[in-house]
Amino acid sequence: MLDFLYYTPTKVFFGKDKHKDVGKIIKEFGYDNIMMQYGKSSIKKSGVYDEVIKSISENGITVTEIGGVEPNPKVSLVREAVKIAKEKKVQMILAVGGGSVIDSSKATATGAMTDIDIWEFSQKKAVPEKTLPVGCILTHAAAGSEMSSSTVLTNTECDMKRGFNTDLNRCIFAICNPELTYTVGKYQTACGIVDIMAHTMERYFTVHPPTDLTDRIAESLLVSVVSAAKVLMNDMQNYEARATIMWASSLSHNGLTGCGRENALPVHQLEHALSGKFDSVAHGAGLAVLFPAWARYVYEKDIPRFAQFARRVWGVTEADDKAAAKSGIEKMAEFFKEIGMPENLRDFGIKENCSDELSYLCTFSKTRTVHSYVEMDYEVIKEIFDSCY
Amino acid sequence: MLDFLYYTPTKVFFGKDKHKDVGKIIKEFGYDNIMMQYGKSSIKKSGVYDEVIKSISENGITVTEIGGVEPNPKVSLVREAVKIAKEKKVQMILAVGGGSVIDSSKATATGAMTDIDIWEFSQKKAVPEKTLPVGCILTHAAAGSEMSSSTVLTNTECDMKRGFNTDLNRCIFAICNPELTYTVGKYQTACGIVDIMAHTMERYFTVHPPTDLTDRIAESLLVSVVSAAKVLMNDMQNYEARATIMWASSLSHNGLTGCGRENALPVHQLEHALSGKFDSVAHGAGLAVLFPAWARYVYEKDIPRFAQFARRVWGVTEADDKAAAKSGIEKMAEFFKEIGMPENLRDFGIKENCSDELSYLCTFSKTRTVHSYVEMDYEVIKEIFDSCY
Repeated sequence: MLDFLYYTPTKVFFGKDKHKDVGKIIKEFGYDNIMMQYGKSSIKKSGVYDEVIKSISENGITVTEIGGVEPNPKVSLVREAVKIAKEKKVQMILAVGGGSVIDSSKATATGAMTDIDIWEFSQKKAVPEKTLPVGCILTHAAAGSEMSSSTVLTNTECDMKRGFNTDLNRCIFAICNPELTYTVGKYQTACGIVDIMAHTMERYFTVHPPTDLTDRIAESLLVSVVSAAKVLMNDMQNYEARATIMWASSLSHNGLTGCGRENALPVHQLEHALSGKFDSVAHGAGLAVLFPAWARYVYEKDIPRFAQFARRVWGVTEADDKAAAKSGIEKMAEFFKEIGMPENLRDFGIKENCSDELSYLCTFSKTRTVHSYVEMDYEVIKEIFDSCY
Repeated sequence: MLDFLYYTPTKVFFGKDKHKDVGKIIKEFGYDNIMMQYGKSSIKKSGVYDEVIKSISENGITVTEIGGVEPNPKVSLVREAVKIAKEKKVQMILAVGGGSVIDSSKATATGAMTDIDIWEFSQKKAVPEKTLPVGCILTHAAAGSEMSSSTVLTNTECDMKRGFNTDLNRCIFAICNPELTYTVGKYQTACGIVDIMAHTMERYFTVHPPTDLTDRIAESLLVSVVSAAKVLMNDMQNYEARATIMWASSLSHNGLTGCGRENALPVHQLEHALSGKFDSVAHGAGLAVLFPAWARYVYEKDIPRFAQFARRVWGVTEADDKAAAKSGIEKMAEFFKEIGMPENLRDFGIKENCSDELSYLCTFSKTRTVHSYVEMDYEVIKEIFDSCY
């Protein structure tokens, strides 16, 4: 077990109707002048917007609204929001939405406490020193941003998607009502499921020796998510399955599934190049294509681990480790297909092979390699992208 | 899945040599005048005391020491410590030890911020409203107090052991170096293992329907702990096994293993009567006797759950649920015996049956019942104690 720091200060209010308490919760934290960010029309259609505004008003809290946060949230909107947050002197940011809205809110919270442009943090040219508190009402289980230390932004000026991690990014509270995800459609739900699994699997597949407790927790999460996903695909309003996916979203990326292991997330690096370049690619769908491709490329570097994954998560019974390892990867790919995910980049409507450009973006113009079982440089990453056509 | 609140703000610094950073950590939290509590001579013998004092001094922190905290920590010492903490105007309490020292420190921290006598909180006659911050260096993996919301005290004036739970009891940091547990002997190590398992199993065995993700996490923890325990009993300085037990200690009682389930801890209630009455009974050893006795009494109320436990944790293969459930309980009892735990109350040297007195203590003079699969009143509890002779 490697040394680790575990820090998950987010207060999670989990269950039915919890979002209706948001005003009371904010007031208990001591704030009365907030910014609220949300996406497009979905929370207005579902009635969540009205319920949240009602609770906030009833508790005498002033709110400045920033709507229209897009999937793959944009630096440009964050810059606008930062300006307004400063003008209005807001004390905290409430995100009502999924990972994109939470990430946008986290970046705004950091930007509001500094004169440094927010993109500098994503480019690692500056390190955040303070931030406004962020709380969230989760409406889509996927990114795990509600408890994670990360935020990821897209800069359309350079087609780049890059994040920054800091414990300052941890939400002070997360309100998680599984019922709010009932309106998330099948495709987006499946994308979320893949993202949750990837957060867990990327911490699981690292070069270090097994870490029994963390391994088993990670495997538990994967087994539960796969099982709940199968229920959900036939019953999109199954509370227990929605609740399992939602809680797994938080646990998959709050650090728990990586305790005592490395936290490199190589496939996320590949995918950020993909959805940074193609805004129409949903992050989870990109991961569904790239994860099996990456696994097929690296699995021979640690056959016993991929075999353990195959047996414990996918119930593979082959006695031979290599055969089991391969079966496990194919079972995972089949599962992604079963829940409606694309199998290759052509399924996204990307007709021409642009692996060279994607690899160029992923390696920051060939200036970095991505750390994995193998040190993935431009050529390796290009080869993995090539295998996705 | 029942609604839940999950709140684990404790910053965990886990790994080798981490206790040597304690001064720096306290300084980063902004404190320079602290109280440090510890037990008897063990941290002085092991050298940990000197290392901690060195780090504290180097960081210019003033420290008031309270040594001699006993197992089953006493209200009387807490009262003294509260008085001194107020006189010295300490800003935080550092606990260096196991659950007893941490519990004593938590209670002192609460007492230091009020004029109400600390025993009033244990008797539920008052509710804590504020507390000094508590940080800890863990030297024994067992109680999970390093991340839990609970503290348990013993009042020798009335032979009572009672705790109080509040999120104010959560440590601000926990420094967990598995190497510091190398000097904990076989018996105490085994007692800790039982306590860790009990914290998990008591949340697992409640009347609600299965909660797949939480169930699997709990089962993972149990499997890992049993496996690490078997390694440890033959190799007391095995780092990986010590680390597994230590991390499991924190996770077993921080709330994770009970998310979406009830948190009643009935067997702990029975055991508090036992070790409250007999100071020589180690809490974990008491649980090792009482848990199988309780399980044999209640298992027929939820055979499928006890069967799931038997199959997933103990590898029981009986097809019949009732037979499997019974086997699981006996496997658990055998495991406790295997790691050197007593099998009955006579093994503690308690020669006369005093079930009536224990049940009387446990039911607070027949004024309460203990919530479990069955509502356990004086007669039921007496029957369970009777079965332990």
